[in-house]
Amino acid sequence: MSQVDKQLDDIRAEIEQEVPNEISITEVAYEGPELVVYTRDPKTFASNGDLIRKLASKLRKRITVRPDPSELSEPSDARATIESIIPEDAGVTDLDFHHDTGEVVVEAQKPGMVIGRHGSTLREITQEVGWTPEVVRTPPIESSTVKNVRNFLKQERDDRRDILERIGRQIHREEMSDDEWVRITTLGCCREVGRAAFILSTPETRVLIDCGDKPGAEDEVPYLQVPEALGSGPSSLDAVVLTHAHLDHSALIPLLFKYGYDGPIYCTEPTRDLMGLLTLDYLDVASKEGRTPPYESEMVREAIKHTIPLEYGDVTDIAPDIKLTLHNSGHILGSAISHFHIGDGLYNVAFSGDIHYDDTRLFNGAVNEFPRVETLVLESTYGGRNDYQTDQADSERKLKEVIRNTIERDGKVLIPAFAVGRSQEIMLVLEEAMREGDIPEVPVHLDGMIWEATAIHTTYPEYLRDDLRDRIFHEDQNPFLADQFNHIDGGEEERQEVADGGPCIVLSTSGMVEGGPIMSWLRHVGGQDDGTMIFVGYQAQGTLGRRIQNGWDEIPINDGGGRADTLSLNMDVETVDGFSGHADRQGLENFVRTMNPRPEKVLCVHGDESSTQDLSSALYHEFNMRTFAPKNLETFRFV
Amino acid sequence: MSQVDKQLDDIRAEIEQEVPNEISITEVAYEGPELVVYTRDPKTFASNGDLIRKLASKLRKRITVRPDPSELSEPSDARATIESIIPEDAGVTDLDFHHDTGEVVVEAQKPGMVIGRHGSTLREITQEVGWTPEVVRTPPIESSTVKNVRNFLKQERDDRRDILERIGRQIHREEMSDDEWVRITTLGCCREVGRAAFILSTPETRVLIDCGDKPGAEDEVPYLQVPEALGSGPSSLDAVVLTHAHLDHSALIPLLFKYGYDGPIYCTEPTRDLMGLLTLDYLDVASKEGRTPPYESEMVREAIKHTIPLEYGDVTDIAPDIKLTLHNSGHILGSAISHFHIGDGLYNVAFSGDIHYDDTRLFNGAVNEFPRVETLVLESTYGGRNDYQTDQADSERKLKEVIRNTIERDGKVLIPAFAVGRSQEIMLVLEEAMREGDIPEVPVHLDGMIWEATAIHTTYPEYLRDDLRDRIFHEDQNPFLADQFNHIDGGEEERQEVADGGPCIVLSTSGMVEGGPIMSWLRHVGGQDDGTMIFVGYQAQGTLGRRIQNGWDEIPINDGGGRADTLSLNMDVETVDGFSGHADRQGLENFVRTMNPRPEKVLCVHGDESSTQDLSSALYHEFNMRTFAPKNLETFRFV
Ligand SMILES: [Zn+2]
Ligand SMILES: [Zn+2]
Ligand SMILES: [Zn+2]
Ligand SMILES: [Zn+2]
Ligand SMILES: [Zn+2]
Repeated sequence: MSQVDKQLDDIRAEIEQEVPNEISITEVAYEGPELVVYTRDPKTFASNGDLIRKLASKLRKRITVRPDPSELSEPSDARATIESIIPEDAGVTDLDFHHDTGEVVVEAQKPGMVIGRHGSTLREITQEVGWTPEVVRTPPIESSTVKNVRNFLKQERDDRRDILERIGRQIHREEMSDDEWVRITTLGCCREVGRAAFILSTPETRVLIDCGDKPGAEDEVPYLQVPEALGSGPSSLDAVVLTHAHLDHSALIPLLFKYGYDGPIYCTEPTRDLMGLLTLDYLDVASKEGRTPPYESEMVREAIKHTIPLEYGDVTDIAPDIKLTLHNSGHILGSAISHFHIGDGLYNVAFSGDIHYDDTRLFNGAVNEFPRVETLVLESTYGGRNDYQTDQADSERKLKEVIRNTIERDGKVLIPAFAVGRSQEIMLVLEEAMREGDIPEVPVHLDGMIWEATAIHTTYPEYLRDDLRDRIFHEDQNPFLADQFNHIDGGEEERQEVADGGPCIVLSTSGMVEGGPIMSWLRHVGGQDDGTMIFVGYQAQGTLGRRIQNGWDEIPINDGGGRADTLSLNMDVETVDGFSGHADRQGLENFVRTMNPRPEKVLCVHGDESSTQDLSSALYHEFNMRTFAPKNLETFRFV
Repeated sequence: MSQVDKQLDDIRAEIEQEVPNEISITEVAYEGPELVVYTRDPKTFASNGDLIRKLASKLRKRITVRPDPSELSEPSDARATIESIIPEDAGVTDLDFHHDTGEVVVEAQKPGMVIGRHGSTLREITQEVGWTPEVVRTPPIESSTVKNVRNFLKQERDDRRDILERIGRQIHREEMSDDEWVRITTLGCCREVGRAAFILSTPETRVLIDCGDKPGAEDEVPYLQVPEALGSGPSSLDAVVLTHAHLDHSALIPLLFKYGYDGPIYCTEPTRDLMGLLTLDYLDVASKEGRTPPYESEMVREAIKHTIPLEYGDVTDIAPDIKLTLHNSGHILGSAISHFHIGDGLYNVAFSGDIHYDDTRLFNGAVNEFPRVETLVLESTYGGRNDYQTDQADSERKLKEVIRNTIERDGKVLIPAFAVGRSQEIMLVLEEAMREGDIPEVPVHLDGMIWEATAIHTTYPEYLRDDLRDRIFHEDQNPFLADQFNHIDGGEEERQEVADGGPCIVLSTSGMVEGGPIMSWLRHVGGQDDGTMIFVGYQAQGTLGRRIQNGWDEIPINDGGGRADTLSLNMDVETVDGFSGHADRQGLENFVRTMNPRPEKVLCVHGDESSTQDLSSALYHEFNMRTFAPKNLETFRFV
């Protein structure tokens, strides 16, 4: 009998001793980080309100109780009963029964009403039909990404159960080593922006944090082949943690599965879905540009199948000696600071991922309170000594002024934007400005992946800034559902109509004018001399966006039929800074200054060489911490 | 056809083009780092004096020419011819014919006379008999270690040839990676003394430097299990380099073979033999102390079989992208600073091993001139701010005075000493002192491994200080052969005789009075109140030696029959510092100050925490270099 089986036997004995005699336990199993208890008496179990909480605290494990399959009523009967229990106002849009787990997935417009006060409605459902309800929100704007991910996971449910069981046994294995050390190895994004990848290791466990690409340098990938990473075999990694879905953090996560990795990906649920969206697009762009994509779309599906979604604040065992907790980082939807508690109080490390310290319209500012942190690995995108950004209020004022002027002269506004995050931030600015009469009400056309990314945002309102979340919960106030927003889904024809029409605003990808529908918009409206093109995001050296910013007005472009042509750009060109998803130098310093507890060491990463060194030196002098600006391929030992 | 075979074919074609038509080449093969050319015309080859040198410089390889086996005359005929060619004064003591390689090993008291002027005698031998002579020195004092090692290698010749061929093909493989980086990972001896072990790695190659134990902490071994070391499989190591034979550098080298390592060990020839002696003793001590030895003596033989001896100054390819050169480090017999030239001028790293910067009686001071060095990994045993040692001349004066006083009152002198290095240094002091009349001529008894270690020293006079070497070459001046020196080989009976006799000096292991014959000497002469016990080496905390230094005179001891007893120590106890094999703080600074070229970076290792930090900080402030006091398990990247 394996050590894990023995452990499960002991746990089962302990549970049986704890629960009333009339509750029979039929199985106890690990499923990912959770302990699942199967019982023939789910109703009795559910009616003992405190029992699960007591067990969880006694066993120090996350516990889920499921009915033994023999206890489940027929789905057709159960469906009728469930529909009678849940209030009609909850807006149930789907019920999906899973025989293997005894779960019924309830998709509803108002999940809170399905849950009921302190979970009372859920308990009632279990008592009546045996099935365990799992509630998901009906997206207010339908996202094909979310739908695809959920259908895929439904279809792969059996496979996924096996994966979770295997991972669960791995997590709860016996510790083998009596050595004690904690190390971080840098595999990328040191003294550079891009290809984020770190290894956190102990004698027992190896965790990879992020695995991104380097935009504009496709051949510079993280150093995955060194022995500390995958060089000693893909199974030497225990877990992968993804801070957020941006490609410089996520693009090569699916590649791990091509290399034979078969373990869990931990991230938030929106990060999982956005990763799916962005990595599939990444493959698409690669093949459109004639490059061989590093992996196939099948590997994206593998990554999704192996994802264990965590909510902010969940303390989760991911290895015998490591607990992971994700915290809001304020950067994009689902972005997380990853906090690792190692050993029994031995050491704590937090990886910031990308952060925004101040609140934005979309997100609360990054969390910087932790039970303990000795070492912080901190992004330094704007860590340079002069990297101070315009205040967002000033930026918004300028944006509105430019738009107002353009519309007043009957012109169109064209804004190239990244699909995820910055587009939604601008949408919120525009919605408010029109609602409050700061700018005239004109149509706002959303092209490229922006609509889909917005749909994903509305699927997960609990990840948005608290007042925004509240508004989304009241459908009539959901700003993303405002009438002005129009999803361009009619292709060239619709674009031509818009171009021929009156004043309007167009938000379109790609954000640096390097392809995508923005190219088509340039052809349609670029020649109109009453229009304005507004840059709201960083334009990298060498991109067409940067050239236009610099004054180019003769633009090489294909004519839509594939022939090369030159376009005379007659629109005004404006740049409005201040909408970055990254904390600026001040924000980074504030994040560290107010951090509780104050870390002993800070590794400054994810910034170019001078930014990381500037920030490292500033934090050292200002806060008297030990700070570093590591290079790639170095290993730091903390314990 | 493999890439290496293709390369060999090309080389063969190039050689055939280069050599005169009458010389037929029958095979070209790699043997370790050397290229071996077999020919049916060895005599013609040998008579073209410059040919080999020209080929070597054209092919940029170390070249050895061997006769095709069909060209060798019968050993009985050859023996007679060889004996007639070599001058009788050369003192040939053995001839051994190896059919597999066409070599005849000539053991002679004066190898120089076998070699002849610029190798003329060797060439004559080859011309006459076909066999290639390889000359080894007849040890002036017979060393059973050297004899055993040589017999063992003779017996394993076939196996060894296969090993060398495999290693040779590995060294000359095609480079696979187009990445460029150079890293050092610390596996031990950082902020501590003991368990020296480092990994030098490039995208192509991984080299382990040293693999020692930690005296007094048997369970603290180098971190071999991490992925950067053996965690990704024993075959992931390309080579092992051993700086010197002290157990804190060598003890766990044989363990590598138990773990499945099957590659080369590079070190000097005396280091190989001393490693054999010391590791076998290490196993012996472990089993006597009731510990399970970490490996069996069979593994020591494996290590010896896989050793490729290098001479100081030989530039040797050990991997497609790494050349190794060993340089005298002045510490013990055969001890070497290991200099690595990486890539085609990409980077240079020198590992000091243990060093003594000033000349001692035994050795020239450490070499500190190199073609290039960017990073120096420097021992810091005496790197602390107060680690200044007594000048050796003062120490010798004091030692002689104490001895003189003791002998003048008819007492005996008992000196606990380490077998390798310090004992021979003291022997040289005593020999000179008696020869010059500074102290009376009395017998000097050598007990424990001291005699054997001395024998190994006399086998390799070319590794000793130049003037000492010259004296050893003239047998009548070999100080180790002085009449006073007596090898205690008669056990307890002989010791009793010595104890009952007149004034004398006893040098005996162990150096810290932790076992070995010194315990027996304490029983025999410790009670004599006209005697003196002199400590000439460092006594670690917790050892009996340290306690005696601190004034203990009631010593728990077993009575020789295994029963516990107490001995009253009546001898005077004196300590004479200044005979260390390590540079003191001043010596370390001088080593760096005069180093040519000056390194950019220094990693201070092999010293306790404060010593490494003191030295690191001093070198930084004094020489404005980037200095570090690494911890174990860290990785530094240089390129
Ligand atoms: Zn990001
Ligand atoms: Zn990023
Ligand atoms: Zn032989
Ligand atoms: Zn040493
Ligand atoms: Zn040492």
